[in-house]
Amino acid sequence: MNIKLTIEYDGTDYCGWQVQPNGRSVQQTIEAALEQILGAKIRLNGSGRTDAGVHALGQVANFIYDGEADLWRLQRGLNGVTPRDIAVRRVERAPDHFDARRDARLRHYRYRIWNDPWPTAVERRYSWHVHEPLDLAAMQRAIGCLEGGHDFASFQAAGCEAAHSVRRVYQSSLRRERELVVFDIEANAFLRHMVRNIVGTLVQIGRDERSAASFAELLAAKDRTLAGPTAPPEGLFLMEVRYEEARQG
Amino acid sequence: MNIKLTIEYDGTDYCGWQVQPNGRSVQQTIEAALEQILGAKIRLNGSGRTDAGVHALGQVANFIYDGEADLWRLQRGLNGVTPRDIAVRRVERAPDHFDARRDARLRHYRYRIWNDPWPTAVERRYSWHVHEPLDLAAMQRAIGCLEGGHDFASFQAAGCEAAHSVRRVYQSSLRRERELVVFDIEANAFLRHMVRNIVGTLVQIGRDERSAASFAELLAAKDRTLAGPTAPPEGLFLMEVRYEEARQG
Repeated sequence: MNIKLTIEYDGTDYCGWQVQPNGRSVQQTIEAALEQILGAKIRLNGSGRTDAGVHALGQVANFIYDGEADLWRLQRGLNGVTPRDIAVRRVERAPDHFDARRDARLRHYRYRIWNDPWPTAVERRYSWHVHEPLDLAAMQRAIGCLEGGHDFASFQAAGCEAAHSVRRVYQSSLRRERELVVFDIEANAFLRHMVRNIVGTLVQIGRDERSAASFAELLAAKDRTLAGPTAPPEGLFLMEVRYEEARQG
Repeated sequence: MNIKLTIEYDGTDYCGWQVQPNGRSVQQTIEAALEQILGAKIRLNGSGRTDAGVHALGQVANFIYDGEADLWRLQRGLNGVTPRDIAVRRVERAPDHFDARRDARLRHYRYRIWNDPWPTAVERRYSWHVHEPLDLAAMQRAIGCLEGGHDFASFQAAGCEAAHSVRRVYQSSLRRERELVVFDIEANAFLRHMVRNIVGTLVQIGRDERSAASFAELLAAKDRTLAGPTAPPEGLFLMEVRYEEARQG
């Protein structure tokens, strides 16, 4: 039985999605819960890693279970056993060949900036506090070049293990909602730190430390040393992972 | 100098606004910060109490300071000294006679219900999880009777020290935003547990454990023993406190 999980988590207290030698990961926390409930060692296959402190509303993972599981009871059990900062939002049976990582066609990330001279209490776990006023129009002009297929080497973390750095961005947008500046980006896949490096650079543009036009030049340069600093993890959410629609018989 | 503070807090880890013999209150945390910054014992006068675990986006308090304070430096100092679950959003000079409690004309509270079979990770600190589907139309019919001046004795906590239980509700509304059901209520003042007792009763109506029509009967009965259970604190926010507009010269 191939089982697909859709998972929400508050990443504040985790070292990220992936199992790490030191620190508690989301993946191993859910694997331990599955072992407790199903009585079998389970290895989860996630759609992709999220780094330490990054959140998810719709992370997707799958695993093969040798046997028949009652999916509603499994979901209830998982939500009972995992800590409250992990919520298993959906448990579904997937086709035998379904692979959460390999079959993912689109990932949607959101980055939230608390843009106000003064801090926030309620949003503190879920946003990056930028004190200075941001020039949204300049940031919006900058992201105009993101759509399409590009080599994102300029926005790749040092040590990223990806075989190549070409990714296809389907959509990106930036808007203000009162104190929050919300950046959305959808792509076929992402490089390590790609969203946070884009946001760190956009904030430099918003502060007028760098021109909007320089963003396209930076993308073309394929040189990580020219980009802005990496924005902190607490503002980043993996919102959704999309797959090919199952073909109807 | 009469100084007015507008304060946001995540109430999860506090025993409420007011100084208590046991437990850490928001008030005493800010008073300690003020003493550290101003070098004087300060007593804050809050617009009203919030209970343990209740949040605020716009709590208001004032205090008298014997001397001249640089308000921008004071605000920066307060946000530096208080823990990150308290944010001082505004610091203003108020007229000498201003009293945050006595002069408040309107308080706006919001209650957030996470209404989904499955829990939430990211909203867990800021909502009450109600598993069962809620009949929103019935709940909306019920609150139709809230507007105006009423004796809210049926929704008053046992042991509430208010001199009388008549309050004037200016507005109330209930809406769904995806999984969240959001209840807003504005009144001149509130009794202890009044919003949480109203919400506990509304959820009974939403679950069809009580009729929408019985809500008006309950209000008329002025008998606390007939109301529903008190909804938990984590869904409740003090959104805003409003005062008379200062008269122009």
